[in-house]
Amino acid sequence: MKNENYSINTLTGKKYIIPLKGDKKKIDDFLSHHKGKKVIVVQGLGFVGAVMTLICSNALTEEYAVIGVDLANSNNYWKIASINEGVFPVVASDPKVEEFFQKTQSKGNLLATFDSYAYSVADVIIVDINLDVLKNSDFSKTLINYDVNLKPFEKGIETIGNNCKEDVLILVETTVPPGTCEKVAYPLIKECLLNRNLAIDKFKLGHSYERVMPGPNYIDSIQNFYRVYSGIDNNSALSVEKFLRTIISTENYPLTQLANTNATEMAKVLENSYRAMNIAFMVEWSRFAELADVNLYEVVSAIRMRPTHSNMMLPGIGVGGYCLTKDPLLASWAKQNLFDSSQPLKQSETSVKINDQMPLFAFNYLKENFKENLSGKKVLLLGVSYRSDISDTRYTPVEPFYDYLTSEGAKIYLHDPYVHLWEEKEVEVSSDLDQLLKEDLDILVFCTNHSEYINNESLIQSISNIKNKNNFIFDTVGVLNKNEINILKESHTVKAVGRGDL
Amino acid sequence: MKNENYSINTLTGKKYIIPLKGDKKKIDDFLSHHKGKKVIVVQGLGFVGAVMTLICSNALTEEYAVIGVDLANSNNYWKIASINEGVFPVVASDPKVEEFFQKTQSKGNLLATFDSYAYSVADVIIVDINLDVLKNSDFSKTLINYDVNLKPFEKGIETIGNNCKEDVLILVETTVPPGTCEKVAYPLIKECLLNRNLAIDKFKLGHSYERVMPGPNYIDSIQNFYRVYSGIDNNSALSVEKFLRTIISTENYPLTQLANTNATEMAKVLENSYRAMNIAFMVEWSRFAELADVNLYEVVSAIRMRPTHSNMMLPGIGVGGYCLTKDPLLASWAKQNLFDSSQPLKQSETSVKINDQMPLFAFNYLKENFKENLSGKKVLLLGVSYRSDISDTRYTPVEPFYDYLTSEGAKIYLHDPYVHLWEEKEVEVSSDLDQLLKEDLDILVFCTNHSEYINNESLIQSISNIKNKNNFIFDTVGVLNKNEINILKESHTVKAVGRGDL
Repeated sequence: MKNENYSINTLTGKKYIIPLKGDKKKIDDFLSHHKGKKVIVVQGLGFVGAVMTLICSNALTEEYAVIGVDLANSNNYWKIASINEGVFPVVASDPKVEEFFQKTQSKGNLLATFDSYAYSVADVIIVDINLDVLKNSDFSKTLINYDVNLKPFEKGIETIGNNCKEDVLILVETTVPPGTCEKVAYPLIKECLLNRNLAIDKFKLGHSYERVMPGPNYIDSIQNFYRVYSGIDNNSALSVEKFLRTIISTENYPLTQLANTNATEMAKVLENSYRAMNIAFMVEWSRFAELADVNLYEVVSAIRMRPTHSNMMLPGIGVGGYCLTKDPLLASWAKQNLFDSSQPLKQSETSVKINDQMPLFAFNYLKENFKENLSGKKVLLLGVSYRSDISDTRYTPVEPFYDYLTSEGAKIYLHDPYVHLWEEKEVEVSSDLDQLLKEDLDILVFCTNHSEYINNESLIQSISNIKNKNNFIFDTVGVLNKNEINILKESHTVKAVGRGDL
Repeated sequence: MKNENYSINTLTGKKYIIPLKGDKKKIDDFLSHHKGKKVIVVQGLGFVGAVMTLICSNALTEEYAVIGVDLANSNNYWKIASINEGVFPVVASDPKVEEFFQKTQSKGNLLATFDSYAYSVADVIIVDINLDVLKNSDFSKTLINYDVNLKPFEKGIETIGNNCKEDVLILVETTVPPGTCEKVAYPLIKECLLNRNLAIDKFKLGHSYERVMPGPNYIDSIQNFYRVYSGIDNNSALSVEKFLRTIISTENYPLTQLANTNATEMAKVLENSYRAMNIAFMVEWSRFAELADVNLYEVVSAIRMRPTHSNMMLPGIGVGGYCLTKDPLLASWAKQNLFDSSQPLKQSETSVKINDQMPLFAFNYLKENFKENLSGKKVLLLGVSYRSDISDTRYTPVEPFYDYLTSEGAKIYLHDPYVHLWEEKEVEVSSDLDQLLKEDLDILVFCTNHSEYINNESLIQSISNIKNKNNFIFDTVGVLNKNEINILKESHTVKAVGRGDL
């Protein structure tokens, strides 16, 4: 049980006391230094919102005063404190993140707060809060049923409606079930404004989704990439366009306007469902390839030479992250619940089901090939984030893999260069690989293909040299190349289901 | 019932008597003019085999004597006769086809025959015969069950084994169930050679699949494109590589060798299953888009700007052709029948099921929107081939669409610039559009997006001017653009589910 009086920085372990009184004075002070500037409020300081505060405070064609807002609870308050202390709350391999944050610091045009008063001073409010799917799955991660809880999202919108100016531009960037802006957010904001005796025909509501890729191109994936947008009406669409032009390099990456908010909302979940489905499709084929003694990685490399097939995916330990694991379900839920269809999006739901089972396949592969009982065995997992070179552990496939190992009584050691505290599991993660390799390990599993592990001669040397020989080394994500496997095989048992076999 | 004494040219209507005696003398004569040249025999003169004879007779680095072989039956003999008469048996929009054929003619290094004697003189035999899936579907084209009939393929291989030299190179290009070369062809050839008291360790057997695209780049899709190959053993792989280098621009399109024939066979069906699945995936979403009043074509255009999503497909009247309609089933069949798995490739099978139902969706859409009874209505179908600018009607989605219309008593007129005789339906197809537009039509349906229909001002004018107004015009494949739709709407009812809505 978390202590709700504190919020712990997952990157540094630093502990903050959650404040009890508001930030109004701090906000007024901040604004007094930025008179005449438009005020942008970013709601939600997660992987998208945090970097959006940097994009807005370093806008291309206008100087904004930017306020980042998150909740004063144990999960989120540390992000607010960290920003205000001058430490960006996301570790990213993109050097531009630090560069942008330094520029922001020296301009002093970014403040973080938990106080809803911020919404009342905003000209533009960007909604970057989460909208979660609740999955009910069995041990093998087979999805039994799921639900979408709109409540927290509605609450976020309500907070805006209860505080905002009547002519504010509200730009929803959250990935929402198609239909949400029109059928949920729009009536809710109107209701709030009516209750406040304000005009209901002046606010602008739009939807535009980022295609952010935390990692080496974190900043560019927002500032220098294509954007799709829409408005609840013409005026809203125009306002969204005007705003986006100030923060995105639209001359190189032209904006695309779609006809209505349903369309942009659908585009986002369709993009991610397409990706999820392409992975799920390959899972089935990887089973076939094993049967036929075919190296699927070799086959896919050959096929990818066709431009029409260059995005074919490779199966690994599993699919993680906040988007691909839930967006197909958001879509299917919306079809049934916001548009009253009796039919789910079957293929998209199936994709999630299949992908969710991938860690179990990897675990079973380990069990079959390791042969001995796992109880008491010392297992080092290299990488816990769901993707290379990021600190994001949300829905990482390493989590169920970790759970399976734990349930068999294995003793687990964790390494990740980007994660200090594995929030979801509430365990610490070491970044001291040399120290970890001194443990009497039985099994090493590459779970994330962080750059640090790739073509790292000294890492291979260190693993070769560890004291107890004949460790079982399992590369689930194609970290090792053929040569490295050969070196490791001199002293260990190596199973690589990735590119290493090529 | 076809008359088995005749074979009718489906392109010209010309009738040939099927010969009763062999071609040995003709083959010997042909070879006497090409002494010292290696002899390439292409087995099967369909859309791949026919063009392979041109690629080989115009090889890049060697001068070959090429013999094309097909069966002396009503479906195939006309191709043999046509080649020998100087008329290439495939109509293609690629001007290189005629150019290559003219060069071949002037060199005189191509002969077509039905006589198995050809195999006995071959140094290389390229297998380009069909391998079909027998589908059992209900009226709505829901796949109930299916089977793979290996017999004709086995017979083709047996004919080779019973006639070939003991050191021949046999290169299978046919799309086969993964495992076929190793588990079916290899033992069969050995058996034949043993029966003939020949050595069984000298022949070379390889697999390499073309990625032929009949259409504007027909020749280049073979000569200037990536190739994947394998051999049943090292020696075979080397021979295949050496041969491919003589016919393909391998300096620009490097060859990729895979570890075994299972791998290349799997690569081919995986490529096509991936494509089939990507289409099927979109079918489900197009239903959702209709519900949410979203133009999916607009959404997909926006998404395609992402390089990782540039191959997202658009749903149309359906999926046709010889590959995408069956290759996923070949794969699933192989998994169960050649590798004894109890599990089919479910997602791949589902893709075929969904795609097969697309013509019914299009038909239902027509019925709902036309509103009147279709009995006795005059319907013009524009395009019968399964893809733009080709004459291939195999498994065209227009066929079930045609059947549905017929079953409701509609009177159907057919137009296609590339098809003279619709072989599968045994009906003639007109290329005289002006004449067809003089009929008292009720409905016009664009079924294939032939270039001839696209941006064709005079066609739009002709349709606008047809006598009886208020025709129902249904564009299933995105032939019409917005402007054309507006012009047509002045005198007709137009429904366009394609790019026209943009």
